[in-house]
Amino acid sequence: MHFASDNWAGVPDAVSRALAEAASGAAPAYGDDGGTAAVTAKIAEVFEHEVAVFYVATGSAANSLSLAAFSPPGGVVFAHETAHVMTDECNAPAFLSPGTRFIGVPGHHGRLDAGELTHALDRFGPPNVHHGRAAAVTITNATELGTVYSPADVAAIGEVVHSRGLKLHMDGARLGNALATLGVSPADLTWRAGVDALSFGLTKTGAWSAEAVVLFTPDGVDDLPYLRKRAGHLFSKSRFVSAQFAALLEGGRWLSLAGHANAMARRLHAGLAAVPGVTFPFVPEANELFPALPRDMVARLFAAGAAFYEWPDASFGDTAGPERTRVRLVTSFATTEADVDAFLAAASG
Amino acid sequence: MHFASDNWAGVPDAVSRALAEAASGAAPAYGDDGGTAAVTAKIAEVFEHEVAVFYVATGSAANSLSLAAFSPPGGVVFAHETAHVMTDECNAPAFLSPGTRFIGVPGHHGRLDAGELTHALDRFGPPNVHHGRAAAVTITNATELGTVYSPADVAAIGEVVHSRGLKLHMDGARLGNALATLGVSPADLTWRAGVDALSFGLTKTGAWSAEAVVLFTPDGVDDLPYLRKRAGHLFSKSRFVSAQFAALLEGGRWLSLAGHANAMARRLHAGLAAVPGVTFPFVPEANELFPALPRDMVARLFAAGAAFYEWPDASFGDTAGPERTRVRLVTSFATTEADVDAFLAAASG
Amino acid sequence: MHFASDNWAGVPDAVSRALAEAASGAAPAYGDDGGTAAVTAKIAEVFEHEVAVFYVATGSAANSLSLAAFSPPGGVVFAHETAHVMTDECNAPAFLSPGTRFIGVPGHHGRLDAGELTHALDRFGPPNVHHGRAAAVTITNATELGTVYSPADVAAIGEVVHSRGLKLHMDGARLGNALATLGVSPADLTWRAGVDALSFGLTKTGAWSAEAVVLFTPDGVDDLPYLRKRAGHLFSKSRFVSAQFAALLEGGRWLSLAGHANAMARRLHAGLAAVPGVTFPFVPEANELFPALPRDMVARLFAAGAAFYEWPDASFGDTAGPERTRVRLVTSFATTEADVDAFLAAASG
Amino acid sequence: MHFASDNWAGVPDAVSRALAEAASGAAPAYGDDGGTAAVTAKIAEVFEHEVAVFYVATGSAANSLSLAAFSPPGGVVFAHETAHVMTDECNAPAFLSPGTRFIGVPGHHGRLDAGELTHALDRFGPPNVHHGRAAAVTITNATELGTVYSPADVAAIGEVVHSRGLKLHMDGARLGNALATLGVSPADLTWRAGVDALSFGLTKTGAWSAEAVVLFTPDGVDDLPYLRKRAGHLFSKSRFVSAQFAALLEGGRWLSLAGHANAMARRLHAGLAAVPGVTFPFVPEANELFPALPRDMVARLFAAGAAFYEWPDASFGDTAGPERTRVRLVTSFATTEADVDAFLAAASG
Repeated sequence: MHFASDNWAGVPDAVSRALAEAASGAAPAYGDDGGTAAVTAKIAEVFEHEVAVFYVATGSAANSLSLAAFSPPGGVVFAHETAHVMTDECNAPAFLSPGTRFIGVPGHHGRLDAGELTHALDRFGPPNVHHGRAAAVTITNATELGTVYSPADVAAIGEVVHSRGLKLHMDGARLGNALATLGVSPADLTWRAGVDALSFGLTKTGAWSAEAVVLFTPDGVDDLPYLRKRAGHLFSKSRFVSAQFAALLEGGRWLSLAGHANAMARRLHAGLAAVPGVTFPFVPEANELFPALPRDMVARLFAAGAAFYEWPDASFGDTAGPERTRVRLVTSFATTEADVDAFLAAASG
Repeated sequence: MHFASDNWAGVPDAVSRALAEAASGAAPAYGDDGGTAAVTAKIAEVFEHEVAVFYVATGSAANSLSLAAFSPPGGVVFAHETAHVMTDECNAPAFLSPGTRFIGVPGHHGRLDAGELTHALDRFGPPNVHHGRAAAVTITNATELGTVYSPADVAAIGEVVHSRGLKLHMDGARLGNALATLGVSPADLTWRAGVDALSFGLTKTGAWSAEAVVLFTPDGVDDLPYLRKRAGHLFSKSRFVSAQFAALLEGGRWLSLAGHANAMARRLHAGLAAVPGVTFPFVPEANELFPALPRDMVARLFAAGAAFYEWPDASFGDTAGPERTRVRLVTSFATTEADVDAFLAAASG
Repeated sequence: MHFASDNWAGVPDAVSRALAEAASGAAPAYGDDGGTAAVTAKIAEVFEHEVAVFYVATGSAANSLSLAAFSPPGGVVFAHETAHVMTDECNAPAFLSPGTRFIGVPGHHGRLDAGELTHALDRFGPPNVHHGRAAAVTITNATELGTVYSPADVAAIGEVVHSRGLKLHMDGARLGNALATLGVSPADLTWRAGVDALSFGLTKTGAWSAEAVVLFTPDGVDDLPYLRKRAGHLFSKSRFVSAQFAALLEGGRWLSLAGHANAMARRLHAGLAAVPGVTFPFVPEANELFPALPRDMVARLFAAGAAFYEWPDASFGDTAGPERTRVRLVTSFATTEADVDAFLAAASG
Repeated sequence: MHFASDNWAGVPDAVSRALAEAASGAAPAYGDDGGTAAVTAKIAEVFEHEVAVFYVATGSAANSLSLAAFSPPGGVVFAHETAHVMTDECNAPAFLSPGTRFIGVPGHHGRLDAGELTHALDRFGPPNVHHGRAAAVTITNATELGTVYSPADVAAIGEVVHSRGLKLHMDGARLGNALATLGVSPADLTWRAGVDALSFGLTKTGAWSAEAVVLFTPDGVDDLPYLRKRAGHLFSKSRFVSAQFAALLEGGRWLSLAGHANAMARRLHAGLAAVPGVTFPFVPEANELFPALPRDMVARLFAAGAAFYEWPDASFGDTAGPERTRVRLVTSFATTEADVDAFLAAASG
């Protein structure tokens, strides 16, 4: 009953097999092997667009270096106030930029709103040396609160962003989950909606470590190799990353795995919503749920061996109140129906 | 006939098996799983010393963050003038510190010399805000030129370093090769000889990506978690790193693999040294060779499909001259006797 | 009729005289002259506490380097959401730290509230690598909105700060104005109320450039000389700074000058408050006023040659509304009663 | 008998007068006053070229920010191995860039040699992520060893630099001394010889603090305002800098003052060269002398109250040897013939 994080899962057999197959033979280091080129071509095919691809070690690095490529000295990046880049990356995005200023913007259910963004940009005003110059906007899809942006949502933001000469970055640590929910194409949810750079993460989806900056624009292509190396993120045996990307992109496996995680989340939501005393601030749209649970139910679940985190009771439209505890439940490719049902049984007492 | 780099090799079966075994089941992310604790205990056992272990993505990151932990504002680090941190890491060590100054010190055959180091430290003088304050010394073992420091060599440097209140760091990207050559214990070559922090790299030895900062001292233990995360180097599914370390440390496998690479280097050296026109600046001591080859021999080898790099003809005691080309040849765990013999045959024409 | 900024003023004769007197003769550079020692002794006397003093070029530098001295890797600083360090220094505080994260906290009338601060620190929680570790709190006195913290206000914050093992920094760009308003001693408003470091700025008070980090604690004393030089802020002929500090501290001249500026602000407030259509969000407490003026009055004032800035209509308790414009009016040592009266006459039409 | 540094001098009356005259009246802050525009126009006139001018607090800041503007991520700057940016600025140039790598190049008498530079650039090779990408070359005129580059010397370097698509920066902390020695125009020694950016320092010449980045090229013009503010180097009351520049540039006063310093240096050289036991490594060309003096003479000079520094006995073509001490003697606008003669008398015993 592991619902603590999709990072707690391992990898599907396909990934282990791909790594085993890549283990023999020699290949140029630092990405000069054919594997990286093949993955780049595959990503271009999947996204229906020419791309530049830069593997890095973590999603934090992908976010930081993407935004570093877009942010000049004095640059300012706007993000949802609950965005991972704002709150959970030890300020790596500002450190690795370096010196980029991040401004949080409110928005319901973890989503940046085009109207709120417009208001924030208007209030920020034109470039000056005191407050800096707006450079980019970053959104996370699926969001940190388990909701998703539709192509129209992204396009509305993209229009605001590009009308002001800024760049749009998407943190895609759970892009597969968003795509699986929406049933739209990767292209529709990214560059066609105005996304210039994507942190393309397959680790949460089912890799050991497969994170990349994907650029849909020539801007930043010249700098990223140096930004990456300067931050110590150029893998020598990068074919181990290629093998994982290849295994997960092949035949849309990443979308199937994400779809499974989403289905388990829906099953969990349906079951929990029927349990008295459990409330949800909104209907989960991907693989994360943030219900408020009665305190005794939380104790019962922990006693039954369930793994999950209590979560700060803010950023949500409702309030858990003194009798209940806000928790986060995350499903993954490895979650089974039996896991969900056991959790529901323990929750129901 | 791949002699371009030990980074061109893949991984031995034991690593693939370990990753496959780690693939199922749930484990806490970000190093809080039992695997990281077990690897830490294993490293402590191997090095016969309490250690703090921090996985990072690359050797550049391990070097940079180790030195960042030891270098205060205005800090200065002394290194051999051919050290990787000086010349091959895109200045990541200065960027991630940040602002640490690196001073190169000469030394025969890639080895920092205790006497030259003393001279450099004397000339540098006491701390002041203009030239900065000496903070640490870093050495690479095996060196970038394929030589090794013995425990006595390290201890001589360690004495200089500690007598001045500085810290000693060792870049151990090829520590296994040095140990296999010397036949001494990991403890003798590191903390017993004065090493405070080690970049412990098993990637070149036989992992996909297994790099860690290993601290033998409490200094830096509090800061490294933040230094690492701030640089985007905290793996979420870190058990994939644990699995590799465990597989390679088990039963001394890393030393056997490094020993094999060294043996192949000796075979290559013995064979080449007998070929007319080939000269070596010194006898290789680990798994890298830097012979000067006649130009037509180089062409013949490339034509035969050999992979290796021409190398800047500096830092060596001799000179290739106009008729010959300096090259670098590197062996790995995956190098076979057949590879070596084929290379020798092609070299001999 | 210059009410645009106290930075628009020049310097009083005493400063010019002091600079002229310091012009001849030789003195050691980089602060090793007797003048710096004398100023340090004078500041210690004025603040009734042992101090370490580091001249820098600007208030932004003083803030940035003070906080850099207190913030370790992963460090987080809490500030009022309208603080200069948050919004007006091009992120220098994060760049020069480097990588320090700043979290804005709300508070009425530009003042950080001890309760809100407690709430923010509670919500932030204990140190972890994802969100970082709380390191310091910074307050500005007089605030960016022209209000002041009393010794009791500061002490309440200081208690919260120190009970959690953090450091308290005060941005004292207008400390003289706050002191002149409150009629308390510099000691009461700083270290006795828990302030560990002060950005002590006399530029707005009446110097060309006299800004210093003043430390009331030994923490940071070793690092600041390097932090300062590394940022290019060590003046060579620092006696020109000493001369200014000496001239302004002598006989409490800085407090008289600030008191004059405050008196002019009170006169301006009293006059404007009587003009129909003018509203104030709160009673000004130092030398800055933020009234909302009828649009035609603003036009009339500009036509009459008044210099002042329109100001973003946020952060205030009231709203200017469509018919009026929020403006900022700042007085200085150089403001005369005639200036004020001319402004009031133009305002009254 | 102050020969320790030109930074030990104060300022000539003209500077004090100019500051006193600028003291009254109001002027926009942060460089938006007419004074900055007037100084920019004056610098353009003096250098016979359109310029962008950015005041900063110190020469270290001017060097760092000039090079930051020219150096992209992974950028590498080549400098003489004794250059101030390499050895005396606490690595500010690498910190503020940030992450720029500096490579020292040897050269006789403190001068970078076009041939040696070519060799270093050839050896460095084309851009790659490991060693970085060459971005700029910086030279100091007059040099740290008191020699000068002629327009032809600079042009030879400029040709190497520009043929490779790099930028040329000149550290002009003592540009006036070089110009006074050479009798050439500022234009001939800078942009006409290929200089793209100049650290234009008048502090050593006779200001309290008058340092600026002067750009002869549009590159960097957009970024420098932000680079400067982000480093805390935007003076609020910048007219105090304008006043100093104006006073020193007026009627070529800076060149007269530097010429006087040079004349005093020549007098000192002529006198000392005639004293038995004194040797010079080369004939001084500006206002710094580096003789080797007999140890008893040094003691006698100190006893007579002379102020000067012993200097590391390296970087010179000769050696002081055990019987003598290398010293540095610097003259300034404030040095008098009497000072020189008193020093010579004491030296002669």
